[in-house]
Formats: sequence, C-alpha cells, structure tokens
Amino acid sequence: MLSLTGKLSTTFLNGVCFTKQSFKIYNGYSGFYDYGPSGCAIIPCVTPEVVLKASGHVEKLTDQMVKDEKTGTFYRADQLLKDFCNEKLREDVRLSLEQAAELRRTLAMMDDLSVEELGAKIKEYGITAPDTKNPLSDPYPFNLMFQTSVGPSGLTAAYVRPETAPGIFVNFKDLYYNNGNKLPFAAAQIGQAFRNEISPRQGFSRVREFTLAEIEHFVDPKDKSHPKFSEVKNLEFLMFPREEQMSAQSAKKIRLGEAVSRGIVNNETIGYFIGRVYLFLSRLGIDQDHLRFRQHLANEMAHYAADCWDAEIECSYGWIECVGIADRSAYDLRAHTEKSGVALVAQEKFSEPREVEKLVIAPVKKELGLAFKGKALGMKATLESKGEVEFYVRKLGKNVCIKKNMLLISKEKKKEFQRVFTPSVIEPSSGIDRIIYCLCEHCFYRRPSKAGDEQLNVFRFPPLVAPIKCTVFTLVQNQQYEEVAKVISESLSVAGISHKIDITGLCFG
Amino acid sequence: MLSLTGKLSTTFLNGVCFTKQSFKIYNGYSGFYDYGPSGCAIIPCVTPEVVLKASGHVEKLTDQMVKDEKTGTFYRADQLLKDFCNEKLREDVRLSLEQAAELRRTLAMMDDLSVEELGAKIKEYGITAPDTKNPLSDPYPFNLMFQTSVGPSGLTAAYVRPETAPGIFVNFKDLYYNNGNKLPFAAAQIGQAFRNEISPRQGFSRVREFTLAEIEHFVDPKDKSHPKFSEVKNLEFLMFPREEQMSAQSAKKIRLGEAVSRGIVNNETIGYFIGRVYLFLSRLGIDQDHLRFRQHLANEMAHYAADCWDAEIECSYGWIECVGIADRSAYDLRAHTEKSGVALVAQEKFSEPREVEKLVIAPVKKELGLAFKGKALGMKATLESKGEVEFYVRKLGKNVCIKKNMLLISKEKKKEFQRVFTPSVIEPSSGIDRIIYCLCEHCFYRRPSKAGDEQLNVFRFPPLVAPIKCTVFTLVQNQQYEEVAKVISESLSVAGISHKIDITGLCFG
Repeated sequence: MLSLTGKLSTTFLNGVCFTKQSFKIYNGYSGFYDYGPSGCAIIPCVTPEVVLKASGHVEKLTDQMVKDEKTGTFYRADQLLKDFCNEKLREDVRLSLEQAAELRRTLAMMDDLSVEELGAKIKEYGITAPDTKNPLSDPYPFNLMFQTSVGPSGLTAAYVRPETAPGIFVNFKDLYYNNGNKLPFAAAQIGQAFRNEISPRQGFSRVREFTLAEIEHFVDPKDKSHPKFSEVKNLEFLMFPREEQMSAQSAKKIRLGEAVSRGIVNNETIGYFIGRVYLFLSRLGIDQDHLRFRQHLANEMAHYAADCWDAEIECSYGWIECVGIADRSAYDLRAHTEKSGVALVAQEKFSEPREVEKLVIAPVKKELGLAFKGKALGMKATLESKGEVEFYVRKLGKNVCIKKNMLLISKEKKKEFQRVFTPSVIEPSSGIDRIIYCLCEHCFYRRPSKAGDEQLNVFRFPPLVAPIKCTVFTLVQNQQYEEVAKVISESLSVAGISHKIDITGLCFG
Repeated sequence: MLSLTGKLSTTFLNGVCFTKQSFKIYNGYSGFYDYGPSGCAIIPCVTPEVVLKASGHVEKLTDQMVKDEKTGTFYRADQLLKDFCNEKLREDVRLSLEQAAELRRTLAMMDDLSVEELGAKIKEYGITAPDTKNPLSDPYPFNLMFQTSVGPSGLTAAYVRPETAPGIFVNFKDLYYNNGNKLPFAAAQIGQAFRNEISPRQGFSRVREFTLAEIEHFVDPKDKSHPKFSEVKNLEFLMFPREEQMSAQSAKKIRLGEAVSRGIVNNETIGYFIGRVYLFLSRLGIDQDHLRFRQHLANEMAHYAADCWDAEIECSYGWIECVGIADRSAYDLRAHTEKSGVALVAQEKFSEPREVEKLVIAPVKKELGLAFKGKALGMKATLESKGEVEFYVRKLGKNVCIKKNMLLISKEKKKEFQRVFTPSVIEPSSGIDRIIYCLCEHCFYRRPSKAGDEQLNVFRFPPLVAPIKCTVFTLVQNQQYEEVAKVISESLSVAGISHKIDITGLCFG
C-alpha cells in the first residue's frame, strides 16, 4: 500500500496508463478525468467548446429549422419538404409527369440543398405549418448539441458530447504510445451521446439521448491492408454499391473478398469492419434478408472521406441506418493537431536510413524557417517569379513579407531515419438503440395460445442476447411453491445463469 | 419477424417490460427512452427540471460561493473557512486555548452553518481571497447541476443528472409491477453523474463528472428484516457509530449481527447492505485496516432519514467517503407522488379481510370528499369548534369553505382487503471513481529492480479486477519474436484471458 505521505498524481498514473486529466492536448479541463487503456476508457460526456470547434461539430452539426410565424412552433425544414413531396407524389392524382419528376429530383437532392435553396423550395411549393397552415419563417441553422457551461462563472461554454469519437482523437498520443508506437491499433468507446433534435419522431431511430459504440482504427494511409481480412473475405451478404443505387438497381449478394478486390470497397480495413459488423448483427439475431450494406453516394460523404458504408436494417420504419463504417482519412487527427498545436502523428522507423533530396532553407530567423515547413516549394517558385512572398507567422500573430535576398533555399541530399505522417482512421460507429429496436422487431412473432382463443406475443431472442435465459414460475401464488422456486433460483444464480423468478402465479392463472 | 405493417409501439413494448418513454409519470419527455427491467435500465442523463424540483435537487444541491471582489474569481465559502481554521490551528503558535477551542467548534459545526452564519464567520475571522488577499463577497448559493435546455425553443429547462436515483424513483410503478407487485425488490443503476463543482480539487474525490452505482431497495416500512441477513451477520469489521464519534473515541471492530441486534444499525436491511459493501470492497482489494463504516451524525443526516452509514476508505487524502448507505424512509416516493400526482405506493393484500373503524365522510360533491382524505379528523374537530373549515380543492384550483351542515362525518366499521402504503427505500450509492482511486493506492507498492539500482512502481491488483491478467513480451523488437508473441496472444484470446501484447522490446531493453 502507498504510504500516506505521497499522493498518486494523475501525471504519475498516466505514466502507467491508468488515468489522466481529460482533454490534455487542450491544456486539460479541471474536474474531468479519463481512464487510460489499462483502466477502461471512460471519456467525459461534458466536452469543452474548443474540442467540438476543432472537430467541426459547433459549425456543422446543425439542422435547418423553420418556425410557424404565428404560434412559434418549430419544425425541421427538410422533414417538412420531404413530407410534402412524398404526400404529393402519393396522393395528388392531377400531378403531371413533369411535376412528379421535379418532386422526385427534390427528394433525391435533399441532402445537398443549402439553407437558401431549402427556403426557396418551401416558398416555391407554398408549404405551410402542418398543424395550423400558418406561413413559415425562412429556415435557419439550429445546432443539435445540448449546451451548458462549466464552472461557476457561467462563461466557459461546453456541450454534452454529440458522439464519442472526439474523446478518442484527443487521446491519440497516449493510445499510440501504449501500443508501442506501432500502427495499426484501435480504440473503442461505448457510451451515451446527446443530440437536441428539433422534433424527435420515428421512435428509436431519432432520439435525444442514445447509446453509441464507436471504434477508431488507426492505420498507415499507405497500407490499409488488414491482417485478419482473410477471416471475413468469404462472407457473402447483401451489398448496395454506389453504382447500383445510381442506376436504380437493388442490393445484391456479393462476396466480401470480391468487393474489395474489384475496388467496390475501398480497402481491406474498411472491408474487414464491414464483415465484422455483418457477423455481429447476424449473431445478435438480425434477419440477414433484412440487412444490407449501402455505400454512401458522393453527395452524402464528407469531402475528406475515402469510402463510407452504412449497415441498414429493414424494419417497419423502412431501411434505417444502424452502423456507419467510414474511412475518414486523416481529417480528424489533422483538425485536432491544427487547433491544439499538439502533433497527432505517427512515425515509421526505417530499418536503413534513406537518402532523400530535400529543399533546405537557411532562415534569417529560426521561426521563419519553421513557418515555411511543407510550403517551401511553392514559396521558392513565388520568390523566383515575384521576388517576394507573404506568409503568416503564428508566433508573431501577423503576416510577414519575406524578400528574396532574406534567405537561401537550396536542394540538398539528406539522410532520413523515419517517416512522420498523420494516420488515417477507419470508424465503425454503431447506434445501439436502433440495433436493439430492429432486433426486437426481427425477433418478434405471434403464436396462438394452447386453447387457440388468443394470440400470444413472443420475443425469440438468440440465447446470446436473451436478457433472461429462463424463468422459474410457480403454478399458483403460495408460500410453499415460492420456497421451492427460490431454491431453484438460487442454484441458477450459483451456476451464473441469468434468470427471472415469477412467483405471482399469474402466468398460469 | 414482425410484418412490416405494424410498428412496435413503446406502449406495447412496455407491456413486455422492454422500453418506454422516460419520465412517464411527468407526462413523458419527447425523444428520451428508458429500457425496462428485461432490457437493461439505461436511464437518461438529461433530466427535466420538474423531476429535479420534486427530488429537491433544484433547491438544495447547492454550495455556498464567494467571489474575489476585485478579480471575480470564485471560491467555495466552506472550503475557505475550513482551510483558514485548519491552518490557524496548525501554524499560529500565539493562539490561546479559548481561540483554539472556538476554531474547533467552527470546524465541527461547518455542515450546520446557514449561508448568513457562514458569511458572518468569514467576516469575523477576516478571511480574504487566498491568491490576492482581496476582500470577499458575501456567500451565495450556487447550484451544482449543469443546466441545459431541451428542444429548439430554449425554454424547456433541464439538467444533466446529478445522480442516478431520480430515474429509478419515477419508474417505481413499472418496477413494482415487474416484481409481481411484491416487496421487497431492488433496482440498480450505474452510469455517469454530473456536478458543476465550484473549484474541483483533491484529484478523484471531487470531480465534475463521475460514475455512480446506485441500488434502490424498496421495503415495507413495517418490516425491514432481510431474508439474507444471516449470510453477513458474522462479518466483523471497523465500525464508527455515532456515539463513539461524539465521545471522541475511534472506530472499532464490531460484529455486524451485534450492531443490528444492539440497535447501533437501525435495521437488518441497511445492515445487509453494509455487509455486502464490505465484502465488495474487500474482494476488489481494498485494505481492511483502512476501511471503516462511519455512521452519520444527527446534523449530517436528512431529517427524513432513518439511518445512514458511509463506507470510508483511508488514502493519502485522509478518510474519504466512497459508498453511502442510507435508509431514506418514504421521502423520495412521497415527493414524486406529490409533484406528479401519480401514486407511487404498494399494497399488502390481506389473506382475510380486516375490520377497521374509519371516519366516513358523506360529501356534498364527490371531489369535496376526495379533497378531505387524511385530513378528516382535524377537519371534524375544526367544524365542531368553529362551525366551518377552509381547504384547497385541487380540481377547482382555489380554496373552498365548507360549512358544518354541508356534510356528515361519522365513524363507521368497514372491511379492508388490503393496506396501501408508501415503501421505504434503502439506498447504497457507490462513487466508482473514488473506489478505483483508493484501490490504486492500496494496491500500489515499490520494489527494487533486480540490479538493485532503481525503484520499480507496481500495482498488485487481485486477479478479479486486474485489467490485464498477463502480458506477452518480446525480449527485443524483431519480426520473428513478434510472430511467436502473436501466436501466444491469439491462444490467450481464445481462452478468454484478457491480456496485453507488448512487442516494443522496451521492457527488457
């Protein structure tokens, strides 16, 4: 036991990978701690604004909202537009072929509409508030994060996390160190995430608080092969590649190995996770005929993403996205590197030093040289053609103009011992509540009672996930039966079998 | 599988105890769902204001805060006062016996001080801001909950939950039904809780986001025996009853059965949980000589509590409270019954109907009669002495004056078939992060390296909780060794043994 003279400091504990102050790369955040890999990464829900600015959530995690001009009720603009188009197409018999085509075009490009275009469409179609038929305001962005503040001043803005991933990215350096400074490696996180939906509907598929399970698998962008891909390459299941969607075909069974070798799936690592997600969902009890992997269309995908596939499960709400598997390239680590000033990078050590030709700058001041990094070639060209070049010096906080004669840029041969790069990240992200809802539907059936006079509702879960493996019932509610039931229940407990004891006698009443 | 024509409604699912809308007794809360007992109770973190008003958190979960009048820095008033007293007692050699006694009195009554008294003490002692020596503001209450709002209007106040218990109380009716309408039963919940501490310090013992594990065990207030108490009654460990604290003695070893039979511990159920908490902490690896159960003094305990014990663990911060075990009587269920208008009660069905004498009111209108419930005797007396009585009719929303001749109150003999009552709740509440911190200290030691030239830091966790059961090391970092290490690692994975593979070769470097 530790002598009572010395406290286990968080720095010290960090040395053995146990705990550390959260959001360390942003200078920490008083009163919040993470557990390191040897503990079990519990990453705070309350997240400082700076982290979510870097990740893009503050600017981009928005829905477009419109307001009933008279009652002040809020609606999601895209939902109203979507409902309007679908209803028109379904019910308006006087619709010309041209009008119908126009509505379908609008539905197809819904995700691409800017806030102005969305407003213009609502005006053009004469859409009003669904309950009152009052006119609607122009749409405006509403951030979906629950805002709060940390500390007594009320001035330190923070949000309740909208997803778990940023908590992993900010810990990259420690995670990389804990993996012996080698790629690939993955970090996983399960926990609550929060989104302040404008108008929640569709039961479990759009809620304000939900359970998210995310893996961030970091790889070398030059080598996205996966050592275990051979374990999943022979799986065959419904896939819905981009091309099939564009040409109005339907999902079809494809062998995963073929999908990767034909380039339908971008690389082995994203393919490996598609396979593992398929196995996971199947083993839970999701019906394979109602499960498909749909590739994102170009307009759905973030500009930086290399590839993205959604595991969609068909239920009474239609096909709903339950797991997203994205190759997000180096975007997240780069964004946090830039914002925090901490380099979230990996190194590949060469077995032999390599000779490389490099542009070398002889700077007038040391920080000028630093500021040139990675931009030297372009600057050299500009200097040669224009005779000067302007650039921003972070340390000075202003633009500085460098004249040709102020420094010397030359090509030199150098020995390099390692390559420094920002890893790519492959991110499978599972909406646990949606999966559970779909599982309930897929495992549900009705059967007639023995007497045949009523329909009984049954959930037939696979034993793996059944919350109750068996139940001990008493035929009637009485003391004697109860005691026997309890003896049986205790022996089940000892055997580690999760069960229920129902001594109400109602099941046979 | 469910045909794609009918959705699984949350009401329906509730019927089979799977999921339901959260905070149902407060008319639900759009976009938030709970899992029922057959799922796994995940209860939202974001909690509507009405729930936390009923539970008393909005009014009472406050700390007293003072402000540096010049810099605006905030401090916790009681911390400053405590630090001042302790420092004076430790360092001021000119202190008279009388002055020292006064400071000790202040320390002892710290928890009883009103905000005005706290302010008066700070003035009397001339306490200033610790960093600047500037004058301090009067203390004022600061609510420790993180506030946010739900929905797009920004007008629906909500808080991120400060503990998990309220989520269980609001679900009492369903939980009771699921236990066959029988007492006792318990609900357990583990998850994040959030408190916006004014100035977090002491590492893990006071943080802004922490993991709380709470059990709410509901019992009949007339029978607080516990069927499994015999399993723990022979345990003997350090207990620190109220009397020993008042008479300045120290904690001593007491057999749990004796503590209950002598009335030191209020009842078998709270005794049972004290025993189970002792076993839990011991098995984790908490050192028994540095673990004690301390009873709350009268001034620490809420007025409604029947008894309360803290499991305190000694570490480098002193004795810190890690688990609180309280008999909170019927307080919580009554508070939520009153605020929500939903009766959170239990019934005891009599095997034979019982004859009871009851006051019976023959009302002029039905709702007048309802409004009289439980107040009839006092009203009868008032009516007889004053000839009239005034009372509030909820449905009318105003006071109504009832004259003597408007109704008839008489004693009648009636048959009763059941007793309706509000259950008591025994609540063991564990601060998981504090326990883990203490465990780290208790399992930590230093030993010399084999060469004897340095001290090595070691955590010796019991296998039960050790995050890594074993590690596969390579002697040096090379391809051949790595492959062998991976083969060993894979067979450990198959055997289900959580382990680590360290191929850095650094451990023997």
